[in-house]
Amino acid sequence: MQRLKKLEEQIGYTFRDTGLLEVAMTHSSYAHEKKIQSYERLEFLGDAVLNFTVASEIFRQNPDRDESFLTNLKSAYVNREYLHRLGKNLGLKKILRHSGPDDIRLDQAVEALIGAIYIDGGYRYARRFIKKYILRKKIKPLEDYKGLIKTLSMRKFNKNVIYRVEKESGPPHKKTFQVIARIPGQQISATGTGRTKKEAEMMASRILLKKLSD
Amino acid sequence: MQRLKKLEEQIGYTFRDTGLLEVAMTHSSYAHEKKIQSYERLEFLGDAVLNFTVASEIFRQNPDRDESFLTNLKSAYVNREYLHRLGKNLGLKKILRHSGPDDIRLDQAVEALIGAIYIDGGYRYARRFIKKYILRKKIKPLEDYKGLIKTLSMRKFNKNVIYRVEKESGPPHKKTFQVIARIPGQQISATGTGRTKKEAEMMASRILLKKLSD
Repeated sequence: MQRLKKLEEQIGYTFRDTGLLEVAMTHSSYAHEKKIQSYERLEFLGDAVLNFTVASEIFRQNPDRDESFLTNLKSAYVNREYLHRLGKNLGLKKILRHSGPDDIRLDQAVEALIGAIYIDGGYRYARRFIKKYILRKKIKPLEDYKGLIKTLSMRKFNKNVIYRVEKESGPPHKKTFQVIARIPGQQISATGTGRTKKEAEMMASRILLKKLSD
Repeated sequence: MQRLKKLEEQIGYTFRDTGLLEVAMTHSSYAHEKKIQSYERLEFLGDAVLNFTVASEIFRQNPDRDESFLTNLKSAYVNREYLHRLGKNLGLKKILRHSGPDDIRLDQAVEALIGAIYIDGGYRYARRFIKKYILRKKIKPLEDYKGLIKTLSMRKFNKNVIYRVEKESGPPHKKTFQVIARIPGQQISATGTGRTKKEAEMMASRILLKKLSD
């Protein structure tokens, strides 16, 4: 339980029911093996809490922006890559119980953690966590990346970026897409993953943009 | 304003700021013409409030169900068709201000209405509305339709259902998909629409299932 205590200190929230935190830090690979509960239900809940909180906060903070801006800004905060990085920073990699390969994505664990805080302490504490760790950083709307790379590619090569789904995995209700973005005639390409094709394209665009700008 | 008063009576909630309700009942076609605010920002917010409330309620009501069940049950409550029917039942068709053709989808207006109640009265009243009008009816998880039609089609024709995207419309961040479902060698087909390809496939499956069962 030492590892859970450390996480509680790190996030500044002490669980009344440590069992909830334990479940939130249990990947399905480990849960199936041990025949115990995985974090998947908490992840489902945490995802909804996170989306609501981010939507509500950016709605209030951007009274003059249209819904397209708000949608893209929300995506920037709730996308897999962003949440995975947060999970890494919180040290979830060492805390999460899992079996098999070590390259587990941590975005789901972050959402499960949010779900667990919501159940344990109520909405107020879940929102506090989201504001502190997710909304604190001012970031650009996600849409920008795809638009920017298009503009850049057209100007530089007179060619538009091509996206191709390389891999689709996971059950029907929870797919993961892997997309490759490349510019025809150029040696350069980038891979992005996401929960939707669009999210994966955004991620690939961001990486491609970085490669082109280097 | 008579039409707004009637809606308030109908839903059992009186707005402090009727202007918010007015915006929620203003489609972008009308708003662009008159250069006033449309319901799109409120729809963005209402969508998040709705998803959170439905997720949270069904999480509590189904302690023994896994996350795949919860996801599909949530889809059954927040999908376009279901919300459109609610909008129709609430009489939004006559209240909504819009220009152009009369076949406007009402699901967005329902979400905007939820967003407006949330801003005007706080979360408590938004949740009350959602529980009363959306969660009241016990429905089956959406996934069932696609699974059911597959089983039926395999048994009856020894063929699987084929889905084809017929139309994609709307801006990148808010697409609408129209999908046709058909069974190879059969004259029967069905069209479904949705905010994702999967949602459109579900809807087409449901209609096809109904046609096959008739």
